[in-house]
Amino acid sequence: MEKISVDVGYKNYYVVLGSNILDELENFLKGKKYSDKALIISDTNVFPLYGEKISEVFKKAGYTPLNHVVQAGESAKCLDVANDIYTKAISEKLDRKSLIVALGGGVVGDLAGFIASTFLRGVPFIQIPTTLLAAVDSSVGGKVGINHPLGKNLIGAFYQPDAVFIDVTFLKSLPEREVRTGFGEIVKYGIIGDENFVSYLEANSAKILDIDEDIYIKIISKSVRAKADVVMKDEKEGDLRRILNFGHTVGHAVEKETNFKKYNHGEAVAIGIVAAMKIGEILKLTDSEDTLRIENLLKSLNLPIRAEGVTIEGINAAMKNDKKAINGKIYFVLPNKIGRVIIETVEDNVVEEAVKYIIN
Amino acid sequence: MEKISVDVGYKNYYVVLGSNILDELENFLKGKKYSDKALIISDTNVFPLYGEKISEVFKKAGYTPLNHVVQAGESAKCLDVANDIYTKAISEKLDRKSLIVALGGGVVGDLAGFIASTFLRGVPFIQIPTTLLAAVDSSVGGKVGINHPLGKNLIGAFYQPDAVFIDVTFLKSLPEREVRTGFGEIVKYGIIGDENFVSYLEANSAKILDIDEDIYIKIISKSVRAKADVVMKDEKEGDLRRILNFGHTVGHAVEKETNFKKYNHGEAVAIGIVAAMKIGEILKLTDSEDTLRIENLLKSLNLPIRAEGVTIEGINAAMKNDKKAINGKIYFVLPNKIGRVIIETVEDNVVEEAVKYIIN
Repeated sequence: MEKISVDVGYKNYYVVLGSNILDELENFLKGKKYSDKALIISDTNVFPLYGEKISEVFKKAGYTPLNHVVQAGESAKCLDVANDIYTKAISEKLDRKSLIVALGGGVVGDLAGFIASTFLRGVPFIQIPTTLLAAVDSSVGGKVGINHPLGKNLIGAFYQPDAVFIDVTFLKSLPEREVRTGFGEIVKYGIIGDENFVSYLEANSAKILDIDEDIYIKIISKSVRAKADVVMKDEKEGDLRRILNFGHTVGHAVEKETNFKKYNHGEAVAIGIVAAMKIGEILKLTDSEDTLRIENLLKSLNLPIRAEGVTIEGINAAMKNDKKAINGKIYFVLPNKIGRVIIETVEDNVVEEAVKYIIN
Repeated sequence: MEKISVDVGYKNYYVVLGSNILDELENFLKGKKYSDKALIISDTNVFPLYGEKISEVFKKAGYTPLNHVVQAGESAKCLDVANDIYTKAISEKLDRKSLIVALGGGVVGDLAGFIASTFLRGVPFIQIPTTLLAAVDSSVGGKVGINHPLGKNLIGAFYQPDAVFIDVTFLKSLPEREVRTGFGEIVKYGIIGDENFVSYLEANSAKILDIDEDIYIKIISKSVRAKADVVMKDEKEGDLRRILNFGHTVGHAVEKETNFKKYNHGEAVAIGIVAAMKIGEILKLTDSEDTLRIENLLKSLNLPIRAEGVTIEGINAAMKNDKKAINGKIYFVLPNKIGRVIIETVEDNVVEEAVKYIIN
C-alpha cells in the first residue's frame, strides 16, 4: 500500500493506492468528523459490483451511507442529473460537513466532484476510481465538471478531494477496451516527463493487458506521481499544468468529430499523441524515430494511431473551439525529446500536415 | 475615492468606492489583459438605467461588451437562467480570460458570480453593485450562488471577484424600501464589531434616508471594511465568518415563513437582529437597554422590529433546515455587548421565548 501526497498549498491530501485497501478507507473515515450521512454517487455499471461493499465500510466506520445511482455513460454529466442530486442531498438534509463519495469512473468522479464543489458552496468529497483512466487521470488533481449541450466539461471547478482511494482489485472487472483507454494517458506521462517510464511500458506491454496487480500498482503510482507533481506546482492550469494536455488538442478534436462514439478518450488521446509527435518532428524538436517509437508502443497496447471518419476541416474547426484556446489562439504541447515537452503556438500549415498524417 | 483592499491569501483585490468613479473602472480595465469580449450580466431594472453607460466604459477601454439581461427579481437565481447564460457565453466563444461583469443588486451579483465560478472552471469577474444592500454585503466576500426550488443559495461557491466598483451615484435611483433593506446589514456591522458605528448611525438616522453622498460613502466604507476584515481572516465560513450571520438565523426563517414576499432581506434581518438581542438579554450577555437601543435605531430607519404572519412552529422548523446547521444543531451569533458577539448553541426554550417576543 502506497500513500502519495498531493499538496496544493491551501490543502494537502493523500492518494492511497494498493490491493484490497478498504481497511484504509475505514480508518480514514473513522479519523474524520464528517456529518453522519454520506452520499455515495455511482452508476448503473459500478454500483451493482461495489456499492454494497463500500456501503459496508461506511457503516463499520459509523456513518449512514446513502446512494444516488446514475445511468452509466457520459450523458450523466449534465445539469439535469446534477439537479436531481442536489434535490436528493437537500431532501436528505445533508449539511456542510456531509461527505460526497465518487464511486466509479471519470464521469462519476467529475459529476460527484462538481456536486461537492457547488452544494452549499462546497462540501467534502473523496474519490474511489474504478477504472484505470480515472485512477491515473481524472481522480487526481481536482478538475471536476459537467457537460453543456454545446461542449464537454464547459461547466465546472477546480476542487480538491479530501482523499483518493485506488484499489487495483476493482480494475479486474474492467472490459479490455476500458483498460486500454487508460494507457492513452499513461503513455502521455512518460512522454512529457520520464523516458524511463516509456521504456518500462515498452518492456512490459505484452503483460500489461493481463492486469497483473504489481505491474498495475507500479504504473498507476508512476502516473499519479507524475500528475500530482504538475498539479502541486500549478493547480489551476496556468502554464505548467497545460503540459498535461499533451496529445489532447488533436485528441479532443478527434473525439468531437466522431461524436464521442467511435473512439473513447484514451484512444483519441493516443491518436492525438501521434499528431503531437508529428508536429514535433516537422518542427525538428524530435526526429522521425521518436514518432515511430511511440507509435509502436501505442500499437502494442492495442491503441489506435490513425483516425478514421474525420476530415482536416472538421478537426481544424473543433480545435479552434477548444476551451483552452485564448483569444482564438491554440497552444500546442510538443515533445522536445521523449521525456520533455514545450508549449508553443504552431503555424496552421504545420498542424495541417500533422493532421493529414493521422487521418487514415 | 477610496480603495479598500481585500486580501484572502491566494488573491488580493480592491473595492473601489466613491462618487462618479467610472474613470477608475476604465483604468482598471486598461491595465488588465482580459480577452476581447466581456459579458455584462444585468437585469431588466438596472440595465436600462446604467447598461449603456457601463458598455461605453468597456468600449473606451478597448473591449467588446456583450450583455445578458435577466428578469429582475429573485427568480433569476436558478439553474435554468444560469444555463441560458452558459449557452450565451459558449456561443459567443468567451474564453478563460473573458471577464464576467455583474451590474445590479444581490441577485445579479450572486448569479453572475456563480457563472464566473463555474464557466470553463472559472473565469475572471467584477462586481458593480447598484443597490445599497449589494454594496455593503453581497458584492464583497466572494459568496456566489443560485437557488434550488427547495431552498435559497443552496448551490454556489466561494469565488472572489477581481474588483468591486461601488459608485454611490448609482444608488440615487433606488426606491426608499431598497435603501432601507441595506440598513438591516449596516446596523449588523455595528453590533458585531463597532459600537461607535452604532452611535454614528443613531446620530445620522434622520438624514440617512435622503441619500447624502458623503454620509453614504462613510457608511458603505465602514461596512465594507467590517466585512472585508472578517472575510480576510476566514474566507470560507469557518468559525469567525459566521459572525456575519448575526440576525440571520431568525431572519432567514422569517423570510422563508413569509414566502420571501412580505419582508425583503434587510427587513427580515432587522427582525432577526431583535430576536438575537433578546436571546442575548435572556442569557444575560446583554441587558434590556441594549435591546431597546437597537430597536429604536431600527425603527428610526423605518425597519420592522416585529414579524407579522409567522408562527413559532413555522420559525422553528425553518431554522432547523438552515444550511448552516451542522448535524441538526443551530449555532446562534449573540451580542456580548454592543460591538462584540459570541457564537453558541442555545436551548430551545430560550429561542422560543425570543421568537415569541418578535412575533406580533
